[in-house]
Amino acid sequence: MRDVSIVGVGIGHWGELWNDSLRDLAVAASLKAIADAGVDRVDSAVIGCMSSGIFTGQEHLASVLGDYLGRGPLPVTRVESACASGALAFKAGYAEVAAGISDVVLVCGAEKMNDLDGSESTYALGTAADQEYEGYNGATFPGLYAMMALRHMHEFGTTRRQLSLVAVKNHANGLQNPNAQFQMAITPEDVEKSAKVADPLRLLDCSPVTDGAAALILVPTELAKKLAPGGAPVAVRGIGHATDTIALHSRASLTRLRAVEVSAERAYQSAGVKPADIHLAEVHDCFTIAELMAMEALGFAAPGQSGPMVERGETAIGGRIPINPSGGLKSKGHPVGATGVAQILEIVEQLRGQAGGRQVKGAKLGLAQNMGGTGGSSIVTILGA
Amino acid sequence: MRDVSIVGVGIGHWGELWNDSLRDLAVAASLKAIADAGVDRVDSAVIGCMSSGIFTGQEHLASVLGDYLGRGPLPVTRVESACASGALAFKAGYAEVAAGISDVVLVCGAEKMNDLDGSESTYALGTAADQEYEGYNGATFPGLYAMMALRHMHEFGTTRRQLSLVAVKNHANGLQNPNAQFQMAITPEDVEKSAKVADPLRLLDCSPVTDGAAALILVPTELAKKLAPGGAPVAVRGIGHATDTIALHSRASLTRLRAVEVSAERAYQSAGVKPADIHLAEVHDCFTIAELMAMEALGFAAPGQSGPMVERGETAIGGRIPINPSGGLKSKGHPVGATGVAQILEIVEQLRGQAGGRQVKGAKLGLAQNMGGTGGSSIVTILGA
Repeated sequence: MRDVSIVGVGIGHWGELWNDSLRDLAVAASLKAIADAGVDRVDSAVIGCMSSGIFTGQEHLASVLGDYLGRGPLPVTRVESACASGALAFKAGYAEVAAGISDVVLVCGAEKMNDLDGSESTYALGTAADQEYEGYNGATFPGLYAMMALRHMHEFGTTRRQLSLVAVKNHANGLQNPNAQFQMAITPEDVEKSAKVADPLRLLDCSPVTDGAAALILVPTELAKKLAPGGAPVAVRGIGHATDTIALHSRASLTRLRAVEVSAERAYQSAGVKPADIHLAEVHDCFTIAELMAMEALGFAAPGQSGPMVERGETAIGGRIPINPSGGLKSKGHPVGATGVAQILEIVEQLRGQAGGRQVKGAKLGLAQNMGGTGGSSIVTILGA
Repeated sequence: MRDVSIVGVGIGHWGELWNDSLRDLAVAASLKAIADAGVDRVDSAVIGCMSSGIFTGQEHLASVLGDYLGRGPLPVTRVESACASGALAFKAGYAEVAAGISDVVLVCGAEKMNDLDGSESTYALGTAADQEYEGYNGATFPGLYAMMALRHMHEFGTTRRQLSLVAVKNHANGLQNPNAQFQMAITPEDVEKSAKVADPLRLLDCSPVTDGAAALILVPTELAKKLAPGGAPVAVRGIGHATDTIALHSRASLTRLRAVEVSAERAYQSAGVKPADIHLAEVHDCFTIAELMAMEALGFAAPGQSGPMVERGETAIGGRIPINPSGGLKSKGHPVGATGVAQILEIVEQLRGQAGGRQVKGAKLGLAQNMGGTGGSSIVTILGA
């Protein structure tokens, strides 16, 4: 297997992008990444997208992306793992380069969610849960995460205020991210007074519906040395991937994310590092409780200790281990298929030292954790400067 | 890169399977393949499925498959490229084994299409074409292929009877396939008297709506030697993958399948063989005209010579190069995400000498060609005994 490095990044502003179609978004991010990498060719591409079929009536994105990039017979693969589609696309692109099948691989993540109205979007997102046993019986995504939150509070004494502080931190970080959907500071009171979605989760505990895309260029590390990209090449140190039961009711514990635990273990092992070695992380905060549970599953906090850790400010920029310096899904936005790619992109920008007002100083080793459904799948990627 | 062999196959009867859900189908085929391979573990899995979101309201099949196989944190990837999803899943699984990321990889293709009614199915399948420029303007899949057929007749003098003979041959082959959806002989007159779908295509020119799944087990060739599978291991000799424009109107020619030409060229090159070396092929006959055009794109017939070649019986079992001995999409059925995996499975059974009444004698080198949309993507796989 060959060593793999990231040499190009491409992303635009995320939000309600009424003038851009899915293909516009994917192509714009991809072209930026190609330009940033300074490559004169692309050998193959992978696109991560959760549900373009339901959201936009368009499957077969492999053909759409190759076509609209103007790259003739480019081999393109579309990968899906619900909200973890982006990082799984990255893993597939990594495998192609590592195997020696392709030298220059484009990985793009994209989702166009605002073409549906709210209830239709909720249905589309519900296809990430167990439709037969959860969705068709009335469970929604916020409802499932609300159950996890209530149980976490019950078992560990996690407080409503600790949940709020996750959202407050991520919005503060997002203020420094020009691409973020919501660039506004919020207070714990704002969160606690926002509309109730599914008790105890309020509107400001939830990531939004977003249109957006992000892209990366992967090459063998040997080739990276011969290019002049827009920033220092960043090495892929390790990737871990795991699944868990699709339905929440099948799990031994509602407060543990087993797919995250196992994927993290695999990533740490392949990188030869441990949680304490990580300087910063992007984690999958689709809901505030998800960030807390991910911190525990990744080994950053002992079970039940994530809430107090956020309260102590240890996960803020400048804290012991900054989490979601990009603003996270909460503030940056969550175009589901794009999120995993954008998390890795944030780590690349941080390790390149190009993160502007949200730069984590001295960051040399970063981790991205992307999750599908209520934790039915997870990919953990570790990157090194 | 490591050499890769197929050591396990799993498939069941295809058709209108009202008692089986998508997950039932995928799991049943996968368990058969695991048993056939005689492996005691699976390291990772890839599932090809075109549009489970629209067809069944369920995305996130990565989690569903790992869960319902009872294989805990198994890393599973779902891949989509419209009707070429199956072969693309195979390519992704091949890359994992070739790269050394995993040793025992399960590749499954599945689709559950009959839960929607006819017009909804037509909508779902239309997401493989250019929804913005073709679908929303009224073009259906049969309509697009009908245009290709008319142009082929105009340019080359291809006849209505030649189209019929493709269907007649594939139904004759399907009679020998216990898993085929339609096990019935038909005559050219049957085809020409069947209901008109989109001129010149009749009902019996079209592949059906099908529920079904198929699965394969891939391992490094070195490991294959240590197993005792249900038949001789079959080596992956070459894979080619390419895309073309998503919309038909963007192409230089309506009678050439450029993605098939390029993917075939890449597969022949990686296998170090030429079209004349191939003993049998499974090609993507979603419509009768598609089989003719694929024969030309694969180099089995010169442009315009595919119709006469079928008329001379050269593509029948016992002919110069048997095409679609399984019965093809036409008679075996076309559960879109499963088709590409089942095509490769047919080649494996043929090379193992286990194809029963449809056995091609002395077959040592076989080819499978799987295509998405109107040829917007294509994967060609070459297998050797």
